[in-house]
Amino acid sequence: MIRNIGIVSKPRREEIAEVIPPLVTWLHARGLEVFLDEDTAAKCTASAHALSRGALARCAELVIVLGGDGTILATARALENREIPILPVNLGGLGFLTSVTLNEMYPLLEAVLAGKYQTSERMMLEAEVMRDGQAVEKQQALNDAVVTQVALARMMDFTVTVDANAVGNYRADGLILATPTGSTAYSLAAGGPIVQPDLDAFVITPICPHMLTNRPLVVPGSAAIEIGFPEETALHLTLDGQVGFDLRCADRVVIRKSPNRVKLVRPPGKSYYDVLRSKLRWAER
Amino acid sequence: MIRNIGIVSKPRREEIAEVIPPLVTWLHARGLEVFLDEDTAAKCTASAHALSRGALARCAELVIVLGGDGTILATARALENREIPILPVNLGGLGFLTSVTLNEMYPLLEAVLAGKYQTSERMMLEAEVMRDGQAVEKQQALNDAVVTQVALARMMDFTVTVDANAVGNYRADGLILATPTGSTAYSLAAGGPIVQPDLDAFVITPICPHMLTNRPLVVPGSAAIEIGFPEETALHLTLDGQVGFDLRCADRVVIRKSPNRVKLVRPPGKSYYDVLRSKLRWAER
Amino acid sequence: MIRNIGIVSKPRREEIAEVIPPLVTWLHARGLEVFLDEDTAAKCTASAHALSRGALARCAELVIVLGGDGTILATARALENREIPILPVNLGGLGFLTSVTLNEMYPLLEAVLAGKYQTSERMMLEAEVMRDGQAVEKQQALNDAVVTQVALARMMDFTVTVDANAVGNYRADGLILATPTGSTAYSLAAGGPIVQPDLDAFVITPICPHMLTNRPLVVPGSAAIEIGFPEETALHLTLDGQVGFDLRCADRVVIRKSPNRVKLVRPPGKSYYDVLRSKLRWAER
Amino acid sequence: MIRNIGIVSKPRREEIAEVIPPLVTWLHARGLEVFLDEDTAAKCTASAHALSRGALARCAELVIVLGGDGTILATARALENREIPILPVNLGGLGFLTSVTLNEMYPLLEAVLAGKYQTSERMMLEAEVMRDGQAVEKQQALNDAVVTQVALARMMDFTVTVDANAVGNYRADGLILATPTGSTAYSLAAGGPIVQPDLDAFVITPICPHMLTNRPLVVPGSAAIEIGFPEETALHLTLDGQVGFDLRCADRVVIRKSPNRVKLVRPPGKSYYDVLRSKLRWAER
Repeated sequence: MIRNIGIVSKPRREEIAEVIPPLVTWLHARGLEVFLDEDTAAKCTASAHALSRGALARCAELVIVLGGDGTILATARALENREIPILPVNLGGLGFLTSVTLNEMYPLLEAVLAGKYQTSERMMLEAEVMRDGQAVEKQQALNDAVVTQVALARMMDFTVTVDANAVGNYRADGLILATPTGSTAYSLAAGGPIVQPDLDAFVITPICPHMLTNRPLVVPGSAAIEIGFPEETALHLTLDGQVGFDLRCADRVVIRKSPNRVKLVRPPGKSYYDVLRSKLRWAER
Repeated sequence: MIRNIGIVSKPRREEIAEVIPPLVTWLHARGLEVFLDEDTAAKCTASAHALSRGALARCAELVIVLGGDGTILATARALENREIPILPVNLGGLGFLTSVTLNEMYPLLEAVLAGKYQTSERMMLEAEVMRDGQAVEKQQALNDAVVTQVALARMMDFTVTVDANAVGNYRADGLILATPTGSTAYSLAAGGPIVQPDLDAFVITPICPHMLTNRPLVVPGSAAIEIGFPEETALHLTLDGQVGFDLRCADRVVIRKSPNRVKLVRPPGKSYYDVLRSKLRWAER
Repeated sequence: MIRNIGIVSKPRREEIAEVIPPLVTWLHARGLEVFLDEDTAAKCTASAHALSRGALARCAELVIVLGGDGTILATARALENREIPILPVNLGGLGFLTSVTLNEMYPLLEAVLAGKYQTSERMMLEAEVMRDGQAVEKQQALNDAVVTQVALARMMDFTVTVDANAVGNYRADGLILATPTGSTAYSLAAGGPIVQPDLDAFVITPICPHMLTNRPLVVPGSAAIEIGFPEETALHLTLDGQVGFDLRCADRVVIRKSPNRVKLVRPPGKSYYDVLRSKLRWAER
Repeated sequence: MIRNIGIVSKPRREEIAEVIPPLVTWLHARGLEVFLDEDTAAKCTASAHALSRGALARCAELVIVLGGDGTILATARALENREIPILPVNLGGLGFLTSVTLNEMYPLLEAVLAGKYQTSERMMLEAEVMRDGQAVEKQQALNDAVVTQVALARMMDFTVTVDANAVGNYRADGLILATPTGSTAYSLAAGGPIVQPDLDAFVITPICPHMLTNRPLVVPGSAAIEIGFPEETALHLTLDGQVGFDLRCADRVVIRKSPNRVKLVRPPGKSYYDVLRSKLRWAER
């Protein structure tokens, strides 16, 4: 049973100050504890506990996210191994992940509190940086792990293996390892396919590859994908476009499926393809 | 235990007349029965039984295919529900499917007869044409099912659903439904991704879509994909680029995973990616 | 000075019956002769001369086109070598070519009759079919000339030369030769670039080429582009998606710039890029 | 008449030490003055004058470049407004620009000294950085001018105008402005078309645009293309992938055709398309 509710928002959005106080009041009226992340608390006058995003992630049994896809990505990483539902409410335009409108929020909250709701479960990835045989960094991402070059020269050389099978040597601007959820984000802009979110798979999309035959590759979600760098260059690993890490030349980046998933509360009667069609304007002529 | 061996070839290849007689002798020397498909038998002087391709497919316990990828596709459909191993030998250049060279054939045959070999199992698709509530046609394919327009006007309108969820209305030259095996065939030329063959998935690739946001889509292998045609046009369904069927306006084409798979004998030490790298020239600079 | 006005419409559009009679009255009130193409005349009660599209094209000094881009394409070909202005009015949605709305039509007509207007001049192409050293067919097109295969097998082989320099051998679904105007039509769907309409150039875009390195090619408008077919196949040449011609195996198709251009009356204050941005929805986020 | 010959090489190539001394001897035997750039002089024992690359560019009447395409790009920029011929010899593999092999070098030199040779003239671009109404930087490039973001977040927002017509607002990894020569370099990797080198045009290719309809654009060589940056971000302008410049938020980058061209000595009997076909492996199946 849900008793503790976390609220995370994109603090730059002005609607926050209007939307959150009545939401907190509504939740308190149902006898629930409410926790706001500190940035959100600073922006509105709601009488709820302010917690760091990490602390909030550890105590909530449901997180209401008010913002855009970026806010969901940050929240998903903060939850780490707690697979609690996220209610993804969009402020300022439908997102691929934030498919619930403000109008739909209250009825959907009723349904969630009554235990009558469905979620879309999304796979996350785990990126490990191996250096001298040791994992020096381990991060999760809901959308993608991206390796790019920092310096002037725009091409970087790297090798990719899938389950220890050599896939090839690439010369490109970088490499995107995307989950199905991330297939509609950066990978799509780089020429990758759209992958239905419940398919257990990764997309490996080179960014502007020198070889025109280096096409996007879809591999099973059970695969371990390893990226190596034969040449001395300044490289950078970015998770979900939000968290970065500098790489050294002999490092290897290993990507696997994370043991943790994200559970997004689904608005009833709105499928993944309904959102996709609207975002990509397929309905129009 | 394997006792009956079928041999299917691409009869236009001249090497047939030289390669097959010693192969038949080699197999006879090991006490095996050998069956040639009729076209092959007509082209060489080997003393083996000639059978129609269908009859051969029903009695063999191993089929040696000598040809290119097209010969494998035709053989795979002929085997229907008999999941016997195919030894895919290329004549005249490495194929995505025919990865065994003539030099590798005899050692690999020894291994197969000794029961010491590995296969790559490939999913097939099944395409059903529904008319007035009845299935009027049902075909299998190893690579792809393609719907295109026959007439002058190059664009056709169609709708796609995945598991009864409306994906969208398309205006395009046609639509390709590819298995992972078919992802490196026509779908790749139309902009689709490469899909590792053991991933349980389909690729849905529109051909020259009018809407630039109509990108290739990867869906689970468990999905039922339905294609409908709102407008009166002359349409054609093609399986593996080899078998065709005329469609009527109110027809619906339903694509599912076939219950049957294809088992390709794998040359030891040559992975899927080794073949891919060679075919797409990734190794070169 | 303009005295004879032709009106061509897309007869299937229902607005015709309402729009054309007052337009004819308006033109008659200014002492002008008005000619309707026969299909248009059959659909509305306007008291104007009905002429075949060809006859109309020979006598008008201005043609008002009411329809979509397809109506412009047909009218442009009908005008042959008469470079008279076309006023391109859209019915039912902005077109790349029909950028004038019904609201803008009357003020723009005033401007045209007063001689105070600008046109966008568009290059046309000329496609010649050479058989046994003779030109057996010669057609013009405003958008594109397209060679495709008719039969089941989807790939065709062809060679391309530019000014007698061998460009390459292609294996593809077909080939599009587009003018800058046609670069936003079929060529765009096949992966071609957008070409600013006043650039003197052609785009050569292969349709689903087997070789992933066969990319779209932009060549000078002064070039003679020749397409040859080494293999026996049933081929078809289509101009602007509207006029077709069957090819034989030893035929060669030669594409050059036409001596004739099309002059589209431009709505003031609306640039080519304004139309492009609106059609391709670049303004939106 | 040619009396002073400059030699520029890619000093990292080991062949230099073997190739250059006999070349210098050969030139001296014909009574010519020979100048080596300083890096080259340091790597071999030839008895020729060593000059800075800039000084060499000011006194030579012919420059022999031994290296790859990158060496040509650097030499072309160094020549500034001196349109003297460059003999582009490749070391270690055919380049798009360095199409002359070592074997072809001596016969071609004979032809050049006899005045019997052809050149391929290549347009260059000029990039100006405007800040507070002043041009604070002005650089030439033979291939491309590229604007990219430096920081973690991968998308940048920018606006493009062509001859003061607003083209659109882009959200992308960056923007490539390429000459026809540069169309086979970075722009091709980013999805741009191939442009025949004598076409007077630019290609504007967005890098991984967020909007899938933001396709490459080809505009006349007479155009002035202006790039503006509405948001505060760390940006970088790179010329030919070799020379960089940091941009500030309110800067505008203006790209025009340079008044200077590059004249590449052409090996007889080898067309632009011959080189293209070989580099992109179109000849193979």
